[in-house]
Amino acid sequence: MEPRCYRLVLEYDGAGFGGWQVQAGDRRTVQGALEAAIAQVTGQTVRVTGSGRTDTGVHAEGQVASVALAAGPEPGALQKALNGVLPRDVVVRELALAPAGFDARRDATAKRYRYALWNASWRAPLRAARTLHVPYALDLGALRLGLQGLVGTHDFASFQAAGASVTTTTRRLLAAELSGEPGGGLQLEFEGSGFLRHMVRNLVGTLLEVGAGKRAPESLEALLAARDRRLAGPTAPAHALTLLFVRYPASVTEAVASRIGDRSD
Amino acid sequence: MEPRCYRLVLEYDGAGFGGWQVQAGDRRTVQGALEAAIAQVTGQTVRVTGSGRTDTGVHAEGQVASVALAAGPEPGALQKALNGVLPRDVVVRELALAPAGFDARRDATAKRYRYALWNASWRAPLRAARTLHVPYALDLGALRLGLQGLVGTHDFASFQAAGASVTTTTRRLLAAELSGEPGGGLQLEFEGSGFLRHMVRNLVGTLLEVGAGKRAPESLEALLAARDRRLAGPTAPAHALTLLFVRYPASVTEAVASRIGDRSD
Repeated sequence: MEPRCYRLVLEYDGAGFGGWQVQAGDRRTVQGALEAAIAQVTGQTVRVTGSGRTDTGVHAEGQVASVALAAGPEPGALQKALNGVLPRDVVVRELALAPAGFDARRDATAKRYRYALWNASWRAPLRAARTLHVPYALDLGALRLGLQGLVGTHDFASFQAAGASVTTTTRRLLAAELSGEPGGGLQLEFEGSGFLRHMVRNLVGTLLEVGAGKRAPESLEALLAARDRRLAGPTAPAHALTLLFVRYPASVTEAVASRIGDRSD
Repeated sequence: MEPRCYRLVLEYDGAGFGGWQVQAGDRRTVQGALEAAIAQVTGQTVRVTGSGRTDTGVHAEGQVASVALAAGPEPGALQKALNGVLPRDVVVRELALAPAGFDARRDATAKRYRYALWNASWRAPLRAARTLHVPYALDLGALRLGLQGLVGTHDFASFQAAGASVTTTTRRLLAAELSGEPGGGLQLEFEGSGFLRHMVRNLVGTLLEVGAGKRAPESLEALLAARDRRLAGPTAPAHALTLLFVRYPASVTEAVASRIGDRSD
């Protein structure tokens, strides 16, 4: 029997994980937890592929992973079995058959991230775990101007983690949006074809300087052109960042939709 | 100099507290943390009065407390100083002068609570800390009917914690509402002139049986009339319950409003 290919949508609380990717040493990772659960349920030692790595402390509402299993079980039964053995801070939200050869990383066309702020003078205990407390006033008009200037295809080298090496630092940002209530919870959302390491957090750290009046929104153009990480703002902390969803071509999602009856939810 | 009377609005994450009220033994309580902070900041050992007790594990977005202090400091300075020494899971959101003799418990006219559900087949790690996972389908129409029947003045003895003793078990429920998205996050909100011990959690435990089809919504009338705790549903867990706000007469809030310039936020 041919191996079956699956598409998994995962939610996890990043606080207890050393990021997505299995690493040397004994740090808990989401990938490691998922592979251990698959081994326990199916007896198969496999590698799962994530749409991308999330860093230590970063959360996901809709991370996507792919895996191929020999003599693969029915999706609904597999989802229930995995959720029965996975630790409490990670869950399989959806699990469906995918076209043969589906690869969650290579086939992804876009990802959307949310960075959550709590913008009031008082720190909020009920929001502290997953928002960044910004106690100073933010100029939301300037923030929006700054966000607009980032949309499009740019070389984001100024916003890449120091020391990272990739073949190209050009990425396409499809959306960069601000929502929420002034003097309360604010969200910065970024959707793009791909992201460099720490790119969202470096954009947020820089945009907060724009909101605080320390940088003009128009200065981001020159910052992009400079291609120099040292000129951008600090890296915003990981605990307020969540991967919301990953987009795939219709050929993948249609295959999923046609098998929707297999889903247990 | 006359002592000054203050009104404090508090947010806290109930997970780390043994409820509001100071108890025998060394359990952390919100009242205890607040009194310790006041002693540290002002040197005065005082008793603060809460609008009411919240149980172990119950959260608050807007608990209200009153306190009188000799040679009382300016409200803005006092709020900043308290927030500087309070533990991370509790904060003073607002602090203002109140009319002499203001008592957060006696003067309260109504309170509103929210009980949060996560109603999907999969447990949600990012919501687990403050929602109850309800994995079965809920009949939202039946739930709404059940909620409607509870509004008004009733004897809620059937929903009082076993062993509690109060002079009267009659309470007035001003609102009992359902909101949210089917198959996702749902909220049950209750606003009333006062609540018996465990009353909201016992109402929720019973309403979930209505939503699951185990009880008819019309049966709640007979359940109220029976005045028998054993006939109601189980007590829903504390971690999904939040005290949203407490209402006071205009005479209190106007006094606060007239001194709004004292507030630091």
